[in-house]
Amino acid sequence: MLVNELQTPALLIEQTALRHNLDTMTAALPGARLRPHVKAHKCTSLARLQYANGHRGFTCATIREVEAMAAAGLGEDLLLANEVLDTRRLGRLVEDGHRVTVAVDSAATIEAAADGGIREVLIDVNVGLPRCGCPPGEAGRLAGLARRAGLVVRGVMGYEGHLMLVQKEEERRERTEHAMTQLLAASADIGGELISAGGTGTCTVNTWANEIQAGSYALMDTAYQELGQPFKLALSVLGRVISVASDWAVVDVGLKALSLDHGLPRIDGTEVWFCSDEHTTFRTEGMPRRSVGDLVRVQPAHVDPTVALHDTIYLVDGPKVLEQWPVDMRGWR
Amino acid sequence: MLVNELQTPALLIEQTALRHNLDTMTAALPGARLRPHVKAHKCTSLARLQYANGHRGFTCATIREVEAMAAAGLGEDLLLANEVLDTRRLGRLVEDGHRVTVAVDSAATIEAAADGGIREVLIDVNVGLPRCGCPPGEAGRLAGLARRAGLVVRGVMGYEGHLMLVQKEEERRERTEHAMTQLLAASADIGGELISAGGTGTCTVNTWANEIQAGSYALMDTAYQELGQPFKLALSVLGRVISVASDWAVVDVGLKALSLDHGLPRIDGTEVWFCSDEHTTFRTEGMPRRSVGDLVRVQPAHVDPTVALHDTIYLVDGPKVLEQWPVDMRGWR
Repeated sequence: MLVNELQTPALLIEQTALRHNLDTMTAALPGARLRPHVKAHKCTSLARLQYANGHRGFTCATIREVEAMAAAGLGEDLLLANEVLDTRRLGRLVEDGHRVTVAVDSAATIEAAADGGIREVLIDVNVGLPRCGCPPGEAGRLAGLARRAGLVVRGVMGYEGHLMLVQKEEERRERTEHAMTQLLAASADIGGELISAGGTGTCTVNTWANEIQAGSYALMDTAYQELGQPFKLALSVLGRVISVASDWAVVDVGLKALSLDHGLPRIDGTEVWFCSDEHTTFRTEGMPRRSVGDLVRVQPAHVDPTVALHDTIYLVDGPKVLEQWPVDMRGWR
Repeated sequence: MLVNELQTPALLIEQTALRHNLDTMTAALPGARLRPHVKAHKCTSLARLQYANGHRGFTCATIREVEAMAAAGLGEDLLLANEVLDTRRLGRLVEDGHRVTVAVDSAATIEAAADGGIREVLIDVNVGLPRCGCPPGEAGRLAGLARRAGLVVRGVMGYEGHLMLVQKEEERRERTEHAMTQLLAASADIGGELISAGGTGTCTVNTWANEIQAGSYALMDTAYQELGQPFKLALSVLGRVISVASDWAVVDVGLKALSLDHGLPRIDGTEVWFCSDEHTTFRTEGMPRRSVGDLVRVQPAHVDPTVALHDTIYLVDGPKVLEQWPVDMRGWR
């Protein structure tokens, strides 16, 4: 099948860029140094390539992601790096022989883990992002609580998400050190072998965590690309020009096919004006002319929520479609 | 089933607000004066209520929406208010006895309509929004082209989408009049019975079009609510508080469960700070305390792309779940 035969909008991954990104990351953070985050791609076919590169542990954001990974035979060491209040679906996976570790940051989430049949947890520590995670000084108390509830505490987790898009690398490094100092203190308090943190934005500067939870690196987006990291844009949404006016043209890829939470998408060689549900309008005045029917690759600013809008990924090599992958970790049920 | 038994995030519609919105709109624009736009809810169960209220014609934005409406037995008069280049899937519906009309704005889209088995079109006229639609002065030429291709031209369509969120009603009315003057001129040029335009933002001021393509009115969102229209917020995303800190709390509804393209969501009685993939952080300092496990209804700023993120709608009446509706018009395939 050829790319120009695809119905639009269609989510594309360029194989050579994906391969470059996977191998570049594996060279920098081999084996257990990387715990790829599957929320960025929600696709077990892609997770299988990460596994083949030597990464046996994965990070998930939802119960559904954990279940789909286990069902795909990738359940050797799955971390749900998020707080959940009903862990029964996860407990059933543990019973079936999958290894599932859950983040906890309160007495309530510890109780929920024990009640649902979870055996292993990480203490989630707040390292500066106002989201989940206990204050660093409370990690010891929570670890004691978890152990008394019969849970194994594998270590700590802390996500410096507020630093992912800090533009200057030196500032990103310094602020990451500050965040990780708090995580290391919590780790010293409670023990355990894991110090899990990081993401694509800090993967090159976070030398304190012993595993990095990066996900976006595999596909990349325009927001991360501005950091000048060694990864290439592999993801785009294919569209067709459906209307051409005097100064602009319209492609059939809108905000139901790409997420705007990090800003407007990019189209090479032109300027995007705005997106509506099923359209993106871009400038043609003083730019190359476009004709109705032209194919356009639209590059999203945020990979994770864009992938979640699609049920299928097309792996392509220039004009050729190589494979069709289901986005099989979508949704929550 | 009770709302507090639902897995979160879950998309809720409050039945009394939905009923109010449907009936208020039907009283203002009865029967064929309203052609409800299904892109706002992507749910044939909800479209059936609009049909029962007397609206037999519907507006769609995608081929998939047209197909799903036809499959649900709601194919009496479906308008695809968008340009498409491959109409074969629609042509098969026409062959099966459904009435499908397609918007065209160029020689290429007219040719595509005729080639795919479409018999009826509207000439899409640009009335000020830089998106699809021909310049008003070209409508006559395109209508001639369509008729020579054997197509029936049912009239004109023009979407004053740039005016939907103009805050002052008087300004909205004046600018809508200006936009509709252009549409009426095109209509006079080409004839046909339909002058199709409008949306929820202009439904109370657009007295020039003879059918209004409103969709959001049924469910509403916080952006439209600020216009002071007679519709109530019926839609929310249910979440649970999963983490509580000194000054903030976190609910398990993030930007994969609601769209941020019109801004942050609202949570009654507090201030939303930010959303990430699976979380929304909101202020608790100086606000009512929250506990882990508390249910929270998060109100999105933009209804259409929020619904498209979910596979199921729960129709609720306060604490009770009344019905479970599939979001069966999602996607494009």
